[in-house]
Amino acid sequence: MSTSTASTRDRFVNSWPTIKQVILDAVRIEKLPSEALEWFERNLDYNTPGGKLNRGTSVVDTFQILKGDSLNSQEFERAAVLGWCVELLQAYFLVSDDMMDQSVTRRGQPCWYRMPEVGNIAINDACMLEGAIYVLLKKYFRNESYYVTLLELFHDTTFQTELGQLIDLLTAPEDDVDLNKFSLEKHHSIVKHKTSFYSFYLPVALAMRFYGMTSPNDPGQAPTDECCKTKNGSTVDVYRQALDILIPLGVYFQVQDDYLDCFGDPSVIGKIGTDIIDNKCSWNINTALKLCTPDQRKVLEAHYGRKDPVSENEVKQIFQADNINLTKRFEEYEAETYKKINDLIKEIDDSSPSGLKQEVFKTFLAKIYKRSK
Amino acid sequence: MSTSTASTRDRFVNSWPTIKQVILDAVRIEKLPSEALEWFERNLDYNTPGGKLNRGTSVVDTFQILKGDSLNSQEFERAAVLGWCVELLQAYFLVSDDMMDQSVTRRGQPCWYRMPEVGNIAINDACMLEGAIYVLLKKYFRNESYYVTLLELFHDTTFQTELGQLIDLLTAPEDDVDLNKFSLEKHHSIVKHKTSFYSFYLPVALAMRFYGMTSPNDPGQAPTDECCKTKNGSTVDVYRQALDILIPLGVYFQVQDDYLDCFGDPSVIGKIGTDIIDNKCSWNINTALKLCTPDQRKVLEAHYGRKDPVSENEVKQIFQADNINLTKRFEEYEAETYKKINDLIKEIDDSSPSGLKQEVFKTFLAKIYKRSK
Repeated sequence: MSTSTASTRDRFVNSWPTIKQVILDAVRIEKLPSEALEWFERNLDYNTPGGKLNRGTSVVDTFQILKGDSLNSQEFERAAVLGWCVELLQAYFLVSDDMMDQSVTRRGQPCWYRMPEVGNIAINDACMLEGAIYVLLKKYFRNESYYVTLLELFHDTTFQTELGQLIDLLTAPEDDVDLNKFSLEKHHSIVKHKTSFYSFYLPVALAMRFYGMTSPNDPGQAPTDECCKTKNGSTVDVYRQALDILIPLGVYFQVQDDYLDCFGDPSVIGKIGTDIIDNKCSWNINTALKLCTPDQRKVLEAHYGRKDPVSENEVKQIFQADNINLTKRFEEYEAETYKKINDLIKEIDDSSPSGLKQEVFKTFLAKIYKRSK
Repeated sequence: MSTSTASTRDRFVNSWPTIKQVILDAVRIEKLPSEALEWFERNLDYNTPGGKLNRGTSVVDTFQILKGDSLNSQEFERAAVLGWCVELLQAYFLVSDDMMDQSVTRRGQPCWYRMPEVGNIAINDACMLEGAIYVLLKKYFRNESYYVTLLELFHDTTFQTELGQLIDLLTAPEDDVDLNKFSLEKHHSIVKHKTSFYSFYLPVALAMRFYGMTSPNDPGQAPTDECCKTKNGSTVDVYRQALDILIPLGVYFQVQDDYLDCFGDPSVIGKIGTDIIDNKCSWNINTALKLCTPDQRKVLEAHYGRKDPVSENEVKQIFQADNINLTKRFEEYEAETYKKINDLIKEIDDSSPSGLKQEVFKTFLAKIYKRSK
């Protein structure tokens, strides 16, 4: 996800009250008891803004790159609506994931389900955040030819993320450490489903839809439409092309996240990593498991996922052992991945009538490459 | 909801394994770890069939009435898919409501979240049941002109039901009895949103969509289309007409349910009612609160929602007091409602080109009127 310029982010944040009112208006016509309406507004405000908003603003940024010009106020509002839909989706995931993980704080405040009087009502609240997405899409995009593809994009992404969450929950339950369940393949599957789709592919695909780009796989779309042809006449699916770049990009981002959790500077990343203690199926442990000796594996099995700083330190020692050396492995992974993704980006034909632009992906990659936070 | 003929119900039940495989096939192409796929299949099987299936079979029954002829095997399968989508929606509500209500059993077996190793994973499992709806709709109906209206129908219904659940949770928390929060208006709002939409309107509206009926409010629909005209040339929205009958019908059904919970024969309804003990915002308590003397209200306030058979009996005594007499009130309500709904049904023009039929609603009403279980 991109880190937007301050002004786009500010404008995006400022659009929230209006967009929230559009959601609430749709509820108001149902003539609910006032306490239900007030509760829903509190749910929306507590859980939707307040994060980094990288996913939401990257819809606006991507649309601006595709358009190649600044946005008028109507374009900005509609791109922002799509951005807020991504943030609502994220809010839905976070509220429910925090309950499943029994987390305590989120974004520097208590998790929603831990607020007074909320508790298990948070399950329904999470679902209502998801429901608000479709209220907004209906209100702003119902008459657009790409409306149905926006709906499918959210359905598909939501389901992929839920699949990822399921794999994660089954692989790394916090209270039952079993390193035999771990593998780099499992890690890849979790990250791809749980993070890449909604954090990287979804914002870009939404901007592409809003810009009017079609796919040969759209309902009712003939695969020979002009939009889908390259210069040499072959058919290209720009959404497939974007997916093939953004999924590995998202995995790369998460691998960095995993690496920084253990080896980053807490004062720079803004938190103290707890992945080892929490039995997370991270890139670090999976890479270590692949490279370790049988004796080292025994140490990992004895100490991974234990709520104890001594155990955590034992694991960190193995991570830095000469035959494992995660820092070196990570640098190799980063260099290799950077090259691979760059090569994929170069395959995009900037002059194609499809309108896809290398810059969309270059911007993402530049923000992520060698980040320290 | 209708109680279908044995053979439709049997055919409907028998269609589940095939339809389930269609859902699982969509997951299989994601190359998930096998334990995630197996878990999802267990979730689908444990929570989707096993109920009365009235909602699901009523899609098939309604479509058959509209068609006026028996269904060929392809028509049956596609109508059954829509029926299973309603049952998946219900499964999603029940799995999450059971967690919110901390229920113990459902359909004669432990609630899903109380199964070994499930626990809070049930939150994600509930969401995946909802997600399966859109997998099926995409697979079976993507190329239909009414695809987008099917999606909207599920979005709207889901959101309405979540609103109803929110009002219910705020009005009648099991552990905080406050009869000042109750009223017949609140009861109506809860029942309309939480039950009528998904149990009554949704199955009929799905069958109407599958039969090809349009609404002047459809995306891209011109309000002058032939489909929407009556004989005298005015425009009628058949979906509005169906809604205006099915919402009160659903409320009537729930009022009966509330009444039978307290006054029905447990050996006939198959369970012992617990609405008084569970602090439910039912038609009984709200009607009693409207009619009671200040002294009677004090008794209700002291004894409603208490986990104690003596308290329960005190409440029942008030319900049967001469000035309240819920049995008489219920009979009056039933007679009045039956007449009102019948009058609405008679307004349907059976010879209109729209194709809507009085029989659809007459069938529902006949099954519900004066039911004892």
